[in-house]
Amino acid sequence: MNRKELIDVIRNKRTFLCIGLDTDLSKVPDHLLRTEDPIFEFNKAIIDATHDLAAAYKPNFAFYECYGTKGWASLTRTIQYLKQFAVFTIADAKRGDIGNTSKQYARAVFDTSMSGLDFDAITVAPYMGEDSVSPFLEFPGKWVILLALTSNKGADNFQFIVSRETESRLFEEVLIKSLAWGDNRNMMYVVGATKAEMLKDIRKLVKDHFLLVPGVGAQGGSLQEVAKYGMTRECGLLVNSSRNIIYASNGEDFAIKAREEALKMQQEMAVLLKNCF
Amino acid sequence: MNRKELIDVIRNKRTFLCIGLDTDLSKVPDHLLRTEDPIFEFNKAIIDATHDLAAAYKPNFAFYECYGTKGWASLTRTIQYLKQFAVFTIADAKRGDIGNTSKQYARAVFDTSMSGLDFDAITVAPYMGEDSVSPFLEFPGKWVILLALTSNKGADNFQFIVSRETESRLFEEVLIKSLAWGDNRNMMYVVGATKAEMLKDIRKLVKDHFLLVPGVGAQGGSLQEVAKYGMTRECGLLVNSSRNIIYASNGEDFAIKAREEALKMQQEMAVLLKNCF
Repeated sequence: MNRKELIDVIRNKRTFLCIGLDTDLSKVPDHLLRTEDPIFEFNKAIIDATHDLAAAYKPNFAFYECYGTKGWASLTRTIQYLKQFAVFTIADAKRGDIGNTSKQYARAVFDTSMSGLDFDAITVAPYMGEDSVSPFLEFPGKWVILLALTSNKGADNFQFIVSRETESRLFEEVLIKSLAWGDNRNMMYVVGATKAEMLKDIRKLVKDHFLLVPGVGAQGGSLQEVAKYGMTRECGLLVNSSRNIIYASNGEDFAIKAREEALKMQQEMAVLLKNCF
Repeated sequence: MNRKELIDVIRNKRTFLCIGLDTDLSKVPDHLLRTEDPIFEFNKAIIDATHDLAAAYKPNFAFYECYGTKGWASLTRTIQYLKQFAVFTIADAKRGDIGNTSKQYARAVFDTSMSGLDFDAITVAPYMGEDSVSPFLEFPGKWVILLALTSNKGADNFQFIVSRETESRLFEEVLIKSLAWGDNRNMMYVVGATKAEMLKDIRKLVKDHFLLVPGVGAQGGSLQEVAKYGMTRECGLLVNSSRNIIYASNGEDFAIKAREEALKMQQEMAVLLKNCF
């Protein structure tokens, strides 16, 4: 999905909600545990109940890999199911390695003829630099979502280190340097909602790249704050919510409750989108 | 495998060679392509031919994930096959995410009852800080191998940024801060052989942690230099070679040729180990 198509999805559905599919078997309702692939059945029900309210879905790879080959099969079914809907799909995998290895990771998520997966985007860690990121950018129509400022406590360990040479913080160095590796049609950045006021500084550096914003909801970030500091004329935001939506109920009504939570967010987003486009 | 057991393996076999299983179907000899699981059959032949010469094996996850569920099955068979030998096993996966996600990644590689994998160690990217690393350290007898200074060109983008506050470079900040997260019995560091002279500085900070050193061979690093600057009384090194060994020949003799290459390295290592223990 290219930038124009993504913006059309956001404009048409009046939502910039990304639903995180961090599907944990221990939280899947009992009645689904008797099916052959409970994780996929859970995801399918969530997707069916919410796809008109979401701009994107983001399966979190760790939650599939922990079940080994079986989990990978559930992930494959999930992405194949998602492809029928007008939604942007994000492989939340935090990959990144030397060039020939990143190329294989790119094939894993982008080249469906090889791997069965067919995501629009992948989250990538920046520590290993340009040649660890650029192989992902060689796939036409696909996106890198580079970690800049994350939503967790450990973000403080390294991401705020100030460079003696440039006086920029590490997350700003990541933004500045990586702007030369791609453009706003194939790169986005992860910026945690728990540090929403930082979006002001970030928007000075990346004026109209999309930002993927985790941390709203369970992690404590505010949607209003994120929009205030991070929204652009073309929206420029995908705000993720995982646990608040997919685990809104652990009973047979889980999909109905998930829809209620997604609808609340979509309605809030529709108001915020009035200043866009 | 704990630290004492790892040192015993190195002492007994007189090798600190790690063989990287970056198994690429396009480089697997033709006669194996007719088998049901060519990647596993290739790995099995390499392991059978080299396990007395290697201290460790390091499957590179990207090379399995690019074949989707089938690749994950080959990876599972490979680690299960490796468990019968006295070798340290490394999941070269470069993972790292917020705490609850890293916990699932840890289960994926360490908790065989859940995932089918049962590695001794995993490579982890440090960008997201302490809470992205510590969940891996909660598994007794398992190891984190944290990226410090990598062997690729892109290492120069961020890893050498000097902190205005501490005057340390970013890779040194990673070493210094992470020393508080674990100890030399559950943490190692990745330090690329292409920057061997940097090992002198690194050994001032991490005196007796094991270092995993990629980049010898195909990437141009020298074993002599690595040992000169990085070796400790208890060896303290695992030096990886992938392509030079596993692709020494692409004919039916590939395993014999792989053994010849591994033997050359082991013999060089045996000499270097004379000063240890």
